[in-house]
Amino acid sequence: MTQTPLDRLPLRPELKGQQPYGAPQLNVPAMLNVNETTYPVPADVVDAIAKEVRAAAETLNRYPDREFTVLRTKLAEYLSVESGAALIAEQIWAGNGSNEVMQHILQAFAGPGRSVMSFPPTYSMYPLYARGVYSSYIAGTRGPGFSQTPQDVAAQIRQHRPHVVILCSPNNPTGTALSLEVVEAAYQAAQESETMVIVDEAYGEFRQPGTPSALTMLEGRPRLIVTRTMSKAFALAGGRLGYLAAAPEVTDALRLVRLPYHLSAVTQAAACAALDHAEHLMANVERIKGQRDRILNELPQMGLTPYPSDANFVFFGGLEDAHQAWQHLLDDGILIRDVGIEGHLRVTAGTEAETTDFLNSLRNYLNR
Amino acid sequence: MTQTPLDRLPLRPELKGQQPYGAPQLNVPAMLNVNETTYPVPADVVDAIAKEVRAAAETLNRYPDREFTVLRTKLAEYLSVESGAALIAEQIWAGNGSNEVMQHILQAFAGPGRSVMSFPPTYSMYPLYARGVYSSYIAGTRGPGFSQTPQDVAAQIRQHRPHVVILCSPNNPTGTALSLEVVEAAYQAAQESETMVIVDEAYGEFRQPGTPSALTMLEGRPRLIVTRTMSKAFALAGGRLGYLAAAPEVTDALRLVRLPYHLSAVTQAAACAALDHAEHLMANVERIKGQRDRILNELPQMGLTPYPSDANFVFFGGLEDAHQAWQHLLDDGILIRDVGIEGHLRVTAGTEAETTDFLNSLRNYLNR
Repeated sequence: MTQTPLDRLPLRPELKGQQPYGAPQLNVPAMLNVNETTYPVPADVVDAIAKEVRAAAETLNRYPDREFTVLRTKLAEYLSVESGAALIAEQIWAGNGSNEVMQHILQAFAGPGRSVMSFPPTYSMYPLYARGVYSSYIAGTRGPGFSQTPQDVAAQIRQHRPHVVILCSPNNPTGTALSLEVVEAAYQAAQESETMVIVDEAYGEFRQPGTPSALTMLEGRPRLIVTRTMSKAFALAGGRLGYLAAAPEVTDALRLVRLPYHLSAVTQAAACAALDHAEHLMANVERIKGQRDRILNELPQMGLTPYPSDANFVFFGGLEDAHQAWQHLLDDGILIRDVGIEGHLRVTAGTEAETTDFLNSLRNYLNR
Repeated sequence: MTQTPLDRLPLRPELKGQQPYGAPQLNVPAMLNVNETTYPVPADVVDAIAKEVRAAAETLNRYPDREFTVLRTKLAEYLSVESGAALIAEQIWAGNGSNEVMQHILQAFAGPGRSVMSFPPTYSMYPLYARGVYSSYIAGTRGPGFSQTPQDVAAQIRQHRPHVVILCSPNNPTGTALSLEVVEAAYQAAQESETMVIVDEAYGEFRQPGTPSALTMLEGRPRLIVTRTMSKAFALAGGRLGYLAAAPEVTDALRLVRLPYHLSAVTQAAACAALDHAEHLMANVERIKGQRDRILNELPQMGLTPYPSDANFVFFGGLEDAHQAWQHLLDDGILIRDVGIEGHLRVTAGTEAETTDFLNSLRNYLNR
């Protein structure tokens, strides 16, 4: 092996030879691979962001509000309406993307000598969050069809006694939300050890009617944290605003590990502007859910097997050669995600036109 | 001791009982306590930020450029002009404030089981950065008048063999820049261990004529990192943009620890807009340096002892009761910083009017 310049630096040993995380980005007509909202940001939201940021820009010579009070208040109001839980600003925390929110949680409650558990196949960043705070990572298991039962989840938590357990609901990449019974069973099992329970609801707004949010369980459960993001439902992936709701003492704990002034005045202003237009943005969520349901309906007619989806994407199996199908779609200008599970692919629900193109291309591939 | 709700959470043991960092913020007419630029952001810069952010807002539904290529290019160009060093985009890294840049450096090169060294009195965040990545912290010592000599710095590095050593130049809170001989001696000593050398030039743009930047030393020194920020000279404290220059392999290493998409499209756009107006903003730097030099000239006439300053603030001693003087100034609507060193205070160089008010109030206090 040749020594690279990087090898000559006194890098931490466990980082040597590692590759940086990154979904490949190709510029094609239909980018349906990273679960962004593919509708453009509505013009009134663009106007509002520009206006709020201009106002903030006039005092950018000063440090921002370290406690992002206005933003926390707006997030609490939004989440209360969205979930039916009664939340207050003191229960809200935010960061530059849910990446940073997760990092704050793990810095406070995991870290060296402690462990983090999640249940693959799930969001591929979880082991990297654990590595970033030097925690060990425990990969739990799932049942048939990537399902999770209350009994099984509780038993695995009791066995491993992780310091932080992450439930992803709806799960990425499979798309299915957990019943609150699973969350409750996990929480009860977690009470027997020094375990915080995170429910990652990054795709929460896309859940099917009748599926409740774990936000409704926060009352009386101080070791439960529910994370959300503005990247998906708010069409704000570029704005990098992740957040969480939990007991007020949890946000007090996170204040001990956050770097001061971690949220810029510009970020706070942009996020507040988008929150002021939540109603408009949620109309797009309904349109996306319609396309998601259309994909769920049409794939079985092609002989494929979609998994139940509460998200803005559909995970499906039944392909003989997933990579070949992925390449066929890409040749048609449609980029979806090969998550490395044999015979399966994941597609983001885009606009009506993008969904039509995706379904037609896939149909052509299967009929080739 | 009463148990608080926070005590009932499974927080990491070393965080229990800790208080969050935070300079007290009082809303008074002259806020000269946190070394912000007190001139308002120029109108053309506000316009440019609003315009660039509006353009970015149109595609906020998409993830931002993970490699912030345009911003890195502009930062390289700016730094090359500012310092006389020839720098390229691959040598630049940035984060949400230099806090995050420092965290990235320590995650890669320090972390658990490793150590971080700096030389108090210096920037009070350094031990907190070390705590945040679970590194041990080594407090070096300074000579008379808080000075640092090449021999002394090198000897302390050889003695402690830290994994990361941070030299703050100009030093906060004392204001004085290091000669490049000190940096070179530190670098040579660091070669004998697994040590990265950081020179924190947060206040670099305010250095006295003839004082070179450590950026001019990067060539051929792969274990040297020079950090900067847009918070001070660019009047962008609220924009949270810290950055560094180093060998390209150092930025490759930081890519392994940064959370993906850590810099929002909004942050990138705002910083780029400010960089496009660097010339205008640097005119304010000259005005601030003028007020800084005025403070340096006038304090000795009051019997006080300012330290040589290459920054946008002045640290001075000779007070019988620093806290009493601080309170007198505050009663006059002028907030400066008591950094906890007996008989000393630190004041930010503000506008001409603010400086006049500060000097008059201090003179009245001494003549009371």
